[in-house]
Amino acid sequence: MIKIAIIGYGNIGRYALQAVQAADDMECVGVVRRGAGEPQPAELAGIEVVDHVSKLSVKPDAAILATPTRSVEQYALECLELGISTADSFDIHTKIWDLRQTLDKAAKEHGAVSVISAGWDPGSDSVVRTLLQACAPKGLTYTNFGPGMSMGHTVAVKAIEGVKAALSMTIPLGTSIHRRMVYVELEEGYTLADVAARIKADPYFASDETHVIQVDNVDEVIDMGHGVNLTRKGVSGVTPNQLFEFNMKINNPALTGQILAASARAALKQRPGAYTLPEIPVIDLLSGDRETLIRHLV
Amino acid sequence: MIKIAIIGYGNIGRYALQAVQAADDMECVGVVRRGAGEPQPAELAGIEVVDHVSKLSVKPDAAILATPTRSVEQYALECLELGISTADSFDIHTKIWDLRQTLDKAAKEHGAVSVISAGWDPGSDSVVRTLLQACAPKGLTYTNFGPGMSMGHTVAVKAIEGVKAALSMTIPLGTSIHRRMVYVELEEGYTLADVAARIKADPYFASDETHVIQVDNVDEVIDMGHGVNLTRKGVSGVTPNQLFEFNMKINNPALTGQILAASARAALKQRPGAYTLPEIPVIDLLSGDRETLIRHLV
Repeated sequence: MIKIAIIGYGNIGRYALQAVQAADDMECVGVVRRGAGEPQPAELAGIEVVDHVSKLSVKPDAAILATPTRSVEQYALECLELGISTADSFDIHTKIWDLRQTLDKAAKEHGAVSVISAGWDPGSDSVVRTLLQACAPKGLTYTNFGPGMSMGHTVAVKAIEGVKAALSMTIPLGTSIHRRMVYVELEEGYTLADVAARIKADPYFASDETHVIQVDNVDEVIDMGHGVNLTRKGVSGVTPNQLFEFNMKINNPALTGQILAASARAALKQRPGAYTLPEIPVIDLLSGDRETLIRHLV
Repeated sequence: MIKIAIIGYGNIGRYALQAVQAADDMECVGVVRRGAGEPQPAELAGIEVVDHVSKLSVKPDAAILATPTRSVEQYALECLELGISTADSFDIHTKIWDLRQTLDKAAKEHGAVSVISAGWDPGSDSVVRTLLQACAPKGLTYTNFGPGMSMGHTVAVKAIEGVKAALSMTIPLGTSIHRRMVYVELEEGYTLADVAARIKADPYFASDETHVIQVDNVDEVIDMGHGVNLTRKGVSGVTPNQLFEFNMKINNPALTGQILAASARAALKQRPGAYTLPEIPVIDLLSGDRETLIRHLV
């Protein structure tokens, strides 16, 4: 059995735990979170909960980093230095290469593996985009998200001063253009105008049309369903008009948690270093005997 | 530049040549075909044409096997024994594992790589099926083909005694069930009933509803467009109703030729052995600098 630790226990952490527990080749040997000394939710009964990965009594083979994106590098480095491989869903597209370089060096130094940006976008969508570019090397791919709740954007809004609770919805406008609809509860003493300005200046929002709307209760408008419509129209050889489309309608954190669990498994099959999902054979994401998998899937 | 030979020069071979010529990192160093001594089509001007791969004056790095599926093993072994890596689109799903075992042994003996069953199904669809199983490990995937011309089935019909010309159309009936509509011109002296019985007994057709229809001129009904609708509904962790769909509308041999060219490229990035496409990092299918690819695709 692959020994897995889960670092961070928000939405993604909870769903990652379910994915680990549902897998036939993995066990969760601990959860690392702030507030480890406090009473824990029922589903963590029987699971060691500590406040630093080094305190786990069983050393994990791999850690799933279910932390905010901006903490991924720090936690990944802590794990890699202990020889623990990692899987994360780091989602700032423009900084993925830099993270990969940093973690690649640390992973190689310590004989471990880091699978980065392994949610669904970046993540499984990245695999589809790469595959479609191989199918039709010239052409345009559009990734249209939603309508749905963006976990990364929601977390980013929650981190902004004056925000008590938040929901960031992604609305597809076609050709990879999106609107961000942000619903916020404000802390006392803050104005919508000030908070909205801060949100719109955040790198997560700066390049998209963003609307910030104040609500009394964010909980009443949250639905964790999400979707994607990814299209490519391109040229195979010299033949134009090759048409490809990938669609999903999914529970967002459930899919992220599942892909993180699969990526932690795949990490243990790679040579030391850091990898994005298109750099890993997709079959390594699966549990089971390779012959059986190939007979059924190829 | 990667030196590519193309073995076999029917539909797939012609499109594979276009894909190789369109790539910025490949050149075609020769075509291997029967009738090498005869006058060649205009697009082969300037390309060496021989009747055996060993006769090429420049040794290729990899050979694209654009032969009938049932000749793939023989030609692959001939290449591998010369240390030439191969890519093929072997499409008898039930025999893929056996081919992989045979070619894996030969490839390792000669320090070469064989990428097998690397068309679009098996091939790119296999990558999608594997990825979706990672996204939702429990559930059902259905691959619905067409309507479109099946190259493999058409070649299989043409090989049957009494068939002068043929077209096999694949009609999707949903939930991975297909009808085969086979249009044939007969050789003189053969009856439709006899030929139809032989077609229906062929392993390519034995498990599908198959109708054989005699026509005066197959050429008038041929259209090489094809398509797929691949769906998965499954469970991520313990969350049901995760919905995935992959659609294509494509020129069939153009896509096969393109994926073969990409797979020949990927072959040169693997350690010796035989691989199906889900066993290869998808990024290896692409030309170009890894950093740039990751920045754009992940």
